[in-house]
Amino acid sequence: MSFSSLLTARWKEADSLLCVGLDPDPHRLTHHYSPDADGIEYFCIDIIDATAQYACAFKPQIAYFAAARAEAQLERICEYIRSNYPTIPIILDAKRGDIGDTATMYAHEAFDRYGAHAVTVNPYMGGDTIEPYLVHPKGAAIVLCRTSNAGSGEFQSQLIDGKPLYQHVAQRAADEWSNKGEVALVVGATYPAELAEVRAIVGDMPLLVPGVGAQGGSPEDVVKNGANSHGTGLIVNSSRAILYADSVDPMPAAARVARETRDALRAAR
Amino acid sequence: MSFSSLLTARWKEADSLLCVGLDPDPHRLTHHYSPDADGIEYFCIDIIDATAQYACAFKPQIAYFAAARAEAQLERICEYIRSNYPTIPIILDAKRGDIGDTATMYAHEAFDRYGAHAVTVNPYMGGDTIEPYLVHPKGAAIVLCRTSNAGSGEFQSQLIDGKPLYQHVAQRAADEWSNKGEVALVVGATYPAELAEVRAIVGDMPLLVPGVGAQGGSPEDVVKNGANSHGTGLIVNSSRAILYADSVDPMPAAARVARETRDALRAAR
Repeated sequence: MSFSSLLTARWKEADSLLCVGLDPDPHRLTHHYSPDADGIEYFCIDIIDATAQYACAFKPQIAYFAAARAEAQLERICEYIRSNYPTIPIILDAKRGDIGDTATMYAHEAFDRYGAHAVTVNPYMGGDTIEPYLVHPKGAAIVLCRTSNAGSGEFQSQLIDGKPLYQHVAQRAADEWSNKGEVALVVGATYPAELAEVRAIVGDMPLLVPGVGAQGGSPEDVVKNGANSHGTGLIVNSSRAILYADSVDPMPAAARVARETRDALRAAR
Repeated sequence: MSFSSLLTARWKEADSLLCVGLDPDPHRLTHHYSPDADGIEYFCIDIIDATAQYACAFKPQIAYFAAARAEAQLERICEYIRSNYPTIPIILDAKRGDIGDTATMYAHEAFDRYGAHAVTVNPYMGGDTIEPYLVHPKGAAIVLCRTSNAGSGEFQSQLIDGKPLYQHVAQRAADEWSNKGEVALVVGATYPAELAEVRAIVGDMPLLVPGVGAQGGSPEDVVKNGANSHGTGLIVNSSRAILYADSVDPMPAAARVARETRDALRAAR
């Protein structure tokens, strides 16, 4: 199944817009887990089991695995999700961006090695560097548009022909890239007005929205500004607020925060 | 030693501006090498030995290692360079770009895990996402400015306040980011006029220039347009033209093409 069909079915099945981000920092794990690659694996498996019923997607952030020499562990985590929760799509958050031949290698890594259904990519190098992800038979590209960090406006908000750069990216995604394969966009919850502008440009396209939880974005604002014509269209990510909800007994707390975040997103519809 | 001091010493020691890119595609290796992670390792070690005397830097492209499950091999390749050619800096071509906490993980990966002296990074998310690489005690950031691919102008050449986006990136690198740590820029050999414009903005800052060799950029144009006030300042990368110079006996051909490219860059000074 394609990313979009899997996602659409999961939005309905779970009645949830919440994406659980897997950003396992070995120094923030409780004493149940060793602060290394193996501890990361067991922690992520436990988080997945604790939160799956509330999730429309899982999003492993590859930097945390790369820094801990945990690529084999990430492979097993993705395999665990596909085997045990086959209706939940996996988004590999890798923010790839490189020229054609190299991008083809990154697409192979994301979709064949890790078995992800979508990968985040950076548009700075242009549409020809996004195409290898779109044409891969198994994958989808989720393109950075307006990111959640404080400094994201430094280039993304600069005006080109009277419109900010991120709106040009959104327009290109809607008009061109979506003709070549499955595409979605990243827009931070920390910029709700921009989220509404992007939604107006891209129709019903899925939007991956980081920045609720630890980064402070409001679930209500996200849904009011970002939902599509079906009341879905959103993959609202929370990572740290769920993973590190309790420093003594993390899993019940992770489940509780995931359920509460899902419910806050539901209530805003 | 810092990246810039290592690089400056190596430019002088080797009298070379050539960077040898390590982009090992398992399907392009000759029958001497198995088309897998181990074959990649042995091939890269042979390329390093064949070309080191002509190189001012080595630049492994991490996508090729990630696609082949060859992270351990990449660690050993970097260790091999540091042990056997300690005066040659290693640039990890990874084009990272992510928010602060995550960028810190990527910096740890590049500088501590792989022991690279510099890593390529993407500026789309803003200067706050570049800072973690600059403040790392061991590392330098080489920021994408005007890339070598055909579609790089799609966003990079768009005018903001009358100047193309890539010039704003160059200005920011020169005025702000360079105050926080060591910074360099990527400008493609395929755009020699833009290379001259960037050089005029950034003073003597090092420029990593991909796009000679297989991509068709001219060594003469690169040196005439890109050299700094010392006649250096350039890290001119060639990957495929060296790695795949001969499909029967690759190493003597790789050495010959590396020497010829170094000589063409020398002759243009």
